[in-house]
Amino acid sequence: MTAKKLKVGIVGGTGYTGVELLRLLSVHPNVMLTAITSRGDAGSAVADMFPSLRGYVDLAFSDPVQANLSECDVVFFATPNGIAMQQTRDLLAKGVRVIDLAADFRIKHIPTWEKWYAMTHACPDLVAQAVYGLPEMNREAIKSAQIVANPGCYPTAVQLGFMPLLEAGAVDASYLIADAKSGVSGAGRKAEVHSLFSEASDNFKAYAVNGHRHLPEISQGLTNMAKSEVGFTFVPHLTPLIRGIHATLYAKLVKPVDLQALFEARYANERFVDVLPKGAHPETRSVRGSNICRIAVHQPQNSDIVVILSVIDNLVKGAAGQAIQNMNIMFNLPENTGLEVVPLLP
Amino acid sequence: MTAKKLKVGIVGGTGYTGVELLRLLSVHPNVMLTAITSRGDAGSAVADMFPSLRGYVDLAFSDPVQANLSECDVVFFATPNGIAMQQTRDLLAKGVRVIDLAADFRIKHIPTWEKWYAMTHACPDLVAQAVYGLPEMNREAIKSAQIVANPGCYPTAVQLGFMPLLEAGAVDASYLIADAKSGVSGAGRKAEVHSLFSEASDNFKAYAVNGHRHLPEISQGLTNMAKSEVGFTFVPHLTPLIRGIHATLYAKLVKPVDLQALFEARYANERFVDVLPKGAHPETRSVRGSNICRIAVHQPQNSDIVVILSVIDNLVKGAAGQAIQNMNIMFNLPENTGLEVVPLLP
Amino acid sequence: MTAKKLKVGIVGGTGYTGVELLRLLSVHPNVMLTAITSRGDAGSAVADMFPSLRGYVDLAFSDPVQANLSECDVVFFATPNGIAMQQTRDLLAKGVRVIDLAADFRIKHIPTWEKWYAMTHACPDLVAQAVYGLPEMNREAIKSAQIVANPGCYPTAVQLGFMPLLEAGAVDASYLIADAKSGVSGAGRKAEVHSLFSEASDNFKAYAVNGHRHLPEISQGLTNMAKSEVGFTFVPHLTPLIRGIHATLYAKLVKPVDLQALFEARYANERFVDVLPKGAHPETRSVRGSNICRIAVHQPQNSDIVVILSVIDNLVKGAAGQAIQNMNIMFNLPENTGLEVVPLLP
Amino acid sequence: MTAKKLKVGIVGGTGYTGVELLRLLSVHPNVMLTAITSRGDAGSAVADMFPSLRGYVDLAFSDPVQANLSECDVVFFATPNGIAMQQTRDLLAKGVRVIDLAADFRIKHIPTWEKWYAMTHACPDLVAQAVYGLPEMNREAIKSAQIVANPGCYPTAVQLGFMPLLEAGAVDASYLIADAKSGVSGAGRKAEVHSLFSEASDNFKAYAVNGHRHLPEISQGLTNMAKSEVGFTFVPHLTPLIRGIHATLYAKLVKPVDLQALFEARYANERFVDVLPKGAHPETRSVRGSNICRIAVHQPQNSDIVVILSVIDNLVKGAAGQAIQNMNIMFNLPENTGLEVVPLLP
Repeated sequence: MTAKKLKVGIVGGTGYTGVELLRLLSVHPNVMLTAITSRGDAGSAVADMFPSLRGYVDLAFSDPVQANLSECDVVFFATPNGIAMQQTRDLLAKGVRVIDLAADFRIKHIPTWEKWYAMTHACPDLVAQAVYGLPEMNREAIKSAQIVANPGCYPTAVQLGFMPLLEAGAVDASYLIADAKSGVSGAGRKAEVHSLFSEASDNFKAYAVNGHRHLPEISQGLTNMAKSEVGFTFVPHLTPLIRGIHATLYAKLVKPVDLQALFEARYANERFVDVLPKGAHPETRSVRGSNICRIAVHQPQNSDIVVILSVIDNLVKGAAGQAIQNMNIMFNLPENTGLEVVPLLP
Repeated sequence: MTAKKLKVGIVGGTGYTGVELLRLLSVHPNVMLTAITSRGDAGSAVADMFPSLRGYVDLAFSDPVQANLSECDVVFFATPNGIAMQQTRDLLAKGVRVIDLAADFRIKHIPTWEKWYAMTHACPDLVAQAVYGLPEMNREAIKSAQIVANPGCYPTAVQLGFMPLLEAGAVDASYLIADAKSGVSGAGRKAEVHSLFSEASDNFKAYAVNGHRHLPEISQGLTNMAKSEVGFTFVPHLTPLIRGIHATLYAKLVKPVDLQALFEARYANERFVDVLPKGAHPETRSVRGSNICRIAVHQPQNSDIVVILSVIDNLVKGAAGQAIQNMNIMFNLPENTGLEVVPLLP
Repeated sequence: MTAKKLKVGIVGGTGYTGVELLRLLSVHPNVMLTAITSRGDAGSAVADMFPSLRGYVDLAFSDPVQANLSECDVVFFATPNGIAMQQTRDLLAKGVRVIDLAADFRIKHIPTWEKWYAMTHACPDLVAQAVYGLPEMNREAIKSAQIVANPGCYPTAVQLGFMPLLEAGAVDASYLIADAKSGVSGAGRKAEVHSLFSEASDNFKAYAVNGHRHLPEISQGLTNMAKSEVGFTFVPHLTPLIRGIHATLYAKLVKPVDLQALFEARYANERFVDVLPKGAHPETRSVRGSNICRIAVHQPQNSDIVVILSVIDNLVKGAAGQAIQNMNIMFNLPENTGLEVVPLLP
Repeated sequence: MTAKKLKVGIVGGTGYTGVELLRLLSVHPNVMLTAITSRGDAGSAVADMFPSLRGYVDLAFSDPVQANLSECDVVFFATPNGIAMQQTRDLLAKGVRVIDLAADFRIKHIPTWEKWYAMTHACPDLVAQAVYGLPEMNREAIKSAQIVANPGCYPTAVQLGFMPLLEAGAVDASYLIADAKSGVSGAGRKAEVHSLFSEASDNFKAYAVNGHRHLPEISQGLTNMAKSEVGFTFVPHLTPLIRGIHATLYAKLVKPVDLQALFEARYANERFVDVLPKGAHPETRSVRGSNICRIAVHQPQNSDIVVILSVIDNLVKGAAGQAIQNMNIMFNLPENTGLEVVPLLP
């Protein structure tokens, strides 16, 4: 442990990624939480809204204007899209490093971002300098990043699943399919009819088949891995879990390869990617509450189709946990500090 | 109503397909339930095991040996695989028609069946004369069938989804993918650890990726539709629903086609297949408790990949309801008799 | 079947009691649905919002002002509290009978109603003439009622459980406890954070322990049964079911009584109350989708405490089904017409 | 941290209390796991059965005969009832201290135990010396105990809720009611039909109303608190949660008392009992995965009935966590060592 603790601020602490940051950061040995902002709930105690944090977090939400975020070492944005891009320049000027859990800095091609997010981007120059915070891909760049664009939940599960195959040129990059299933917490803590218990429970459906915002983010990553344009079909589904993403990935092999060895070698030194034994089927609950991505590789019936199964907890490796993993890298802490939470099963 | 009611027997009434047959047959206007057998529970009242049937079913389970099944007009087998093939010949000899909800008569190629079900088949000659009971495909043959092989749950959802495309030669039959998700009732009412609430709830996983018994059944059907060998990848998943299957199907278009029109035309006269408007996403709950299959057709991002979404209630259209639909056809009743149950939502 | 169908209107068709009325009325043999109103969704097809009704309901929502409700024989109000009391007088004047599924006409003592519902009542005189629509208690009065106040969900389960005991003077009426558990659909289809899947799933809590609106409604009923003031404690809980109420009732015996015989005799002629055998434990799923209340009676360890277990489907016997039962009584139809829906299990 | 780690053995590691002990002990700073036994699964890696433990537990299950348990400092029994009583004497003789998570040592009155557990007790003398491991009641005795009888899950939630009232003589001890609701993991990891997902999901029921094994255990504790015989009614229910117990307790006040102050004072120094502010409603999820019991006190409508709401995670404070809390006390470690796990919400 370092002698000095990092001063950490959170903008937008009332959503699920916010409370998840608090769950993990409140017991992180190198962190001192200094401010959690919420425009709507300023003044009320965090633990009144989230009784699970009683005894661990004694801060109250503060107004964004009055919170002295410029004194922080790092600020997490757990806000809707479009907020971080408004405030990042000022924070950088004060020497504060920024980790955005929303999408503002994820997509390098500004017109693409503006089309999918239906906003004008406030700071294209900062997008250029931001680092996409998938540590297993960009660890070196993250170390010195001033702005980290924390990946989306689907993109984390899908990219970690395809990465070894594309880097090795083992599959046809023009025909990649991700059939992904998410728990309902991925929709956030907003009050919306389709996320009600009586709507989402005992029910399964696909959504946004014609285009989900994570499509361009994933395509950008796959293109980088393949070093060529990719053809990518992405179908997200809503499944009655609170937490968890299960991505089932399909690709066509273009050359003989020992798939199991390929994956094990690629992730041999990665603390948070666990390649399961041949023939395994990872369960979302096996990573519940933890920062681990578990992956299994299949080649059913010995055809030329490879099937990758990749599971994460969307709120941890798909959001708050990965953000803290990035913070640890940025501040030269052991990458797993504060993240050795054993998954909760059953 | 017809003057005379059909005398109906059920072999193996203690599983989920058994109780589902009872739910539907107990209020079917042309049916008189005459016997429900169960070796283990003979003598106990059906409604004691299934209180939902109190007031609707006053039969007791009877021993298979003593139940006078040969006086029935039709007998449903809601038994494990390998039972119906032992008893069908005798029933046929007595003039009883048979509908098997298990797999004994589904696969025409006996060596294939024996490999996947790990048994020697007791009556290959009867397999040859059995009719595969997917009414939307084989209605004419079902009318006069003495043995109906009621399709599996996954095979129903998947085949109805691919059928218009393959019949029209619209897609590359060598590269078909079905990513299918099932509720837990598909595993039956057997006491097994992996089906426990504390194992299956708040959890999602794939299973049997390297080979599920429904794979050869579906492949046989797709081959018939395509009139050529098909390349087919099938990945089933377990999802925390009681009832419901959602099949997400992927195929590559080989010629321009108005997909929406193709599906609407193919199913225009089918009472139990409902093609949703363009862009829709069928939910499993929209068919909960009903015999309807709802289908939506997508061509995401205008690529050459077509995505079909197909949902059924695995216990109804995927089992008991389709079996009754077959019975109605066999006995010249209106096909929807006893099956106009409005889905239960929420 | 009668030759002439009842013309039926529904005010407020977009909530769960609305869609449940539609599920049951769309196949009721004596009903013609003539109008379903919704201010917010006028013009859109009912089946677009509720795909489960595709093929059964082809009406569109209509604006309340334009819907010609005065031509109906009966109008159901499936609206928030405070709406029916504004419109009932006009409908009555046109000869339309009214069944209110909200609380406007349930409580006879106007100051009590106004305190708990925080509104001034618009028509106290109509409250006086309204009949509380619990058929097992008030069947005769319902036959000629112009206004039926359909009971709340908790009040139905609790009153049916206590009724035989209080009518017989068998228990101490000054110390009655109802520990009641409801599925989440009881909170309606409103978008509220506490009803989200990620909040209500895998979670259990009590709420409104210091006072729930159903408390005065139940107290009024219990007082009528006991013919004296009662002491009544009511603790509602939210449980992760879509549908279902389970009321666990506690009372102290004041004289020896054959409890099982008492309940069986009281409900011998009631189609929709099913007294289970001694020692049974009714499950909410045993009434899922049906209008039945199942009750079991216990006297644990032979103490003087009697424990009654009472289950209903909150949307059927606790709302839409009971409303239709009332309609059948009002229009001299067999009481179970359109209500013989076998519960959906599993 | 102490220099020397405790050597810990677990007998019966394949159930839910076993895996929960492993989740917590694998990261306990003062513990070295030395053996986990399972007769049926000897030889297989623990992490193969529970992939959530991959990277945290690298032991294999060992045969009970071969595991060298006598070298342990402490052995946990996470076995069915009746096992620990067979093995405890030998372990004690070797200087090993025992914590039994089953019921063998919980009830002091041997005939009562033998009646409820339908076995002859193997070592009544050891029952006499065992300490009932509810730290908030028996902390001093636990410190030097050689055998700790870890309380049942319901008994923990119910006793902590009633304790301040009974110790203060504030309520009528002859009329206590506990209406308790448990998640399904309380039934263990045994394959039984009633615990299947398709049986227990979307369903709610009471069970064992006429007598549950936790009744005599709770009665013994309440009697100790009240210093007189108590009248106690206990109704357990099964609710579709994985984890969690919610006990709703009813009692009659016999004297005026500031209930909120009474509870706050009683638990002021208890790390693992959290008295919520007046008017609060604790949720089971607010303690998910943690060792905390949260309690709220109500006096509805200012009547003389007090209602206590008490929630725990049945696998933690109701089993494995409390067992570790007892171990910490027995070995003079800070009581919360290894138990500061922030609850997982959502």
